Amino acid sequence: MRHTFPLLLATTLLSTPLMAQDDLRAAALEAFKPLPSTVPAVADNPITPEKIELGKALFFDPRLSASGVFSCYSCHNLATGGDDNLETSIGHGWQKGPRNAPTVLNSVLNEAQFWDGRAADLAEQAKGPVQAGVEMANTPDNVVATLSSMPGYVAMFSAAFDGAAPNFDDMARAIEAFEATLVTPAPFDAWLNGDDAALNADQLAGMQLFMDKGCVACHEGINVGGHGYYPFGLIEKPGAEILPVGDKGRFAVTETADDEYVFRAAPLRNVSVTAPYFHSGKVWDLKVAVQIMAESQLGEALSDQEADQLVAFLDSLTGEVPAVTVPSLPAETGNTPRPTAEVLTAPE
Amino acid sequence: MRHTFPLLLATTLLSTPLMAQDDLRAAALEAFKPLPSTVPAVADNPITPEKIELGKALFFDPRLSASGVFSCYSCHNLATGGDDNLETSIGHGWQKGPRNAPTVLNSVLNEAQFWDGRAADLAEQAKGPVQAGVEMANTPDNVVATLSSMPGYVAMFSAAFDGAAPNFDDMARAIEAFEATLVTPAPFDAWLNGDDAALNADQLAGMQLFMDKGCVACHEGINVGGHGYYPFGLIEKPGAEILPVGDKGRFAVTETADDEYVFRAAPLRNVSVTAPYFHSGKVWDLKVAVQIMAESQLGEALSDQEADQLVAFLDSLTGEVPAVTVPSLPAETGNTPRPTAEVLTAPE
Repeated sequence: MRHTFPLLLATTLLSTPLMAQDDLRAAALEAFKPLPSTVPAVADNPITPEKIELGKALFFDPRLSASGVFSCYSCHNLATGGDDNLETSIGHGWQKGPRNAPTVLNSVLNEAQFWDGRAADLAEQAKGPVQAGVEMANTPDNVVATLSSMPGYVAMFSAAFDGAAPNFDDMARAIEAFEATLVTPAPFDAWLNGDDAALNADQLAGMQLFMDKGCVACHEGINVGGHGYYPFGLIEKPGAEILPVGDKGRFAVTETADDEYVFRAAPLRNVSVTAPYFHSGKVWDLKVAVQIMAESQLGEALSDQEADQLVAFLDSLTGEVPAVTVPSLPAETGNTPRPTAEVLTAPE
Repeated sequence: MRHTFPLLLATTLLSTPLMAQDDLRAAALEAFKPLPSTVPAVADNPITPEKIELGKALFFDPRLSASGVFSCYSCHNLATGGDDNLETSIGHGWQKGPRNAPTVLNSVLNEAQFWDGRAADLAEQAKGPVQAGVEMANTPDNVVATLSSMPGYVAMFSAAFDGAAPNFDDMARAIEAFEATLVTPAPFDAWLNGDDAALNADQLAGMQLFMDKGCVACHEGINVGGHGYYPFGLIEKPGAEILPVGDKGRFAVTETADDEYVFRAAPLRNVSVTAPYFHSGKVWDLKVAVQIMAESQLGEALSDQEADQLVAFLDSLTGEVPAVTVPSLPAETGNTPRPTAEVLTAPE
């Protein structure tokens, strides 16, 4: 759904330069929510240890790609913030993807997936890159043939899905189950949970600015964004180097004129470690990204100190990635389809 | 060094169809050696926890490549036997490497590195792919600039190398230290260490055949290979589809006519999970690979049962990969060189 803008929210929050922590926390808890202490539940996909184990194997398995080069992990690298730190990802045949890869961390808590929200959930999302010609360039049939050729996968699917043989839908559900475990509690959560010492003065001032200036109007909730769709350039469109004219965002999903250059508000958890920024991936400096946002979305020219404090607040959203041990994947058999580096579709 | 062939060894080992386990073990311990229970020592590079931690970070870091796409882990994937399960690796610009990527597992125990032994140790080896135009396509200067731009790496280098700033040599030493931890105790080791139940009858028969037929002449020692250089096609050269005429192996290192088509004997630990086989990566089926070896190196046509038993023995070399937790890498800064997908050198 499209949100209306609670533009008045900010003015009601702040009356003094720095609120008392308890008051600031009370205001923050109206806008945000700390991460849960357990794996978030997922609609229509009960999370079980067997699904998580299978999903982890699939997430790390480059044999989901036609070339055998790319796994989910390649572009959603758990060592580098759950993304690939590239402008846009490089995939099959050295083709460049159209948009910056979002982080997989905490993505289970987004309202919908992809920059334009075209996938309702992570299970639907997981099917996209596997088949995209510029990403993993595979087909569901070939993926199922690959997984079915390995007794280890057959056993894991059976254990996770009540005796089922490997299939594309359950592959996606298992990946969703593993990804649901990738939540990253941060100093921000510790502070929301009552630990006054978790944030320093700059971070607190930044949080107050975040609410005062109105950033929170779009970047709210448990993921500090990831909910609702908004035009990029609400007040003033950024230049075409940042907002390329050819990518009309959610318009491609809804075909509604109102949705031209509309994108899902980026979830901001771990934003400090997931440069470069925006769907175009054109901005590497978080402070610059904050300044662009303030101008384009709020019509605000931030002072240098304000920008620094906002960045300090965003730093407090960098969380701890759960310990993930590299799985040992089943070995290929004589029936496993062989990888091919051939590029069958022309680059877009 | 070039080994001479102890061709008489086999005949002295076997007098009965299946030796008593104790006799077989005594013979096997003449030829092989179980893995150590601690991290192997490395010449001129004392292993410390700080070096291992830094090396692990570097091993997983795609920013060692010019494109930001490839890390050591990409082609030496710990989830798939320490290699990439490709004929030859795909690297920068979607170029194909010249030879099959060997497993990193237990590689610290090889006499030298690469198929032609051109690197004396893993530290020397690690510098190769980082700079190879068809692999990571980076330069030492750019790597050092990248690492020096991140305070997290500066601190890790300092801790690991007595206050040193990031530099290319220590990068390689740290990677070697991490790789030294990647040893994989297998049922084969348990049996060598005295556990009669660790191997089944087929595996024992296969081990006896391995020694009897003379496979052990080249594939001996702690890594069941990885020591000494031998002509591929000693008795009968395999076809050009398996032994391409353009790749003369160790000849390129020594420029000695005797070394044409000479390669380091492949270490066979984890061979069951590291298809495809040979330096050309042209054979996917281990049984076929075993048959080719028997014919080309020993002039032996194996019976079907013999080939199956040899494969069963090789399966017993599949070990347990140590638990490796994905590291959280330092984030880029404003000074970090940006990735480039551009291909500066023409494919070879």
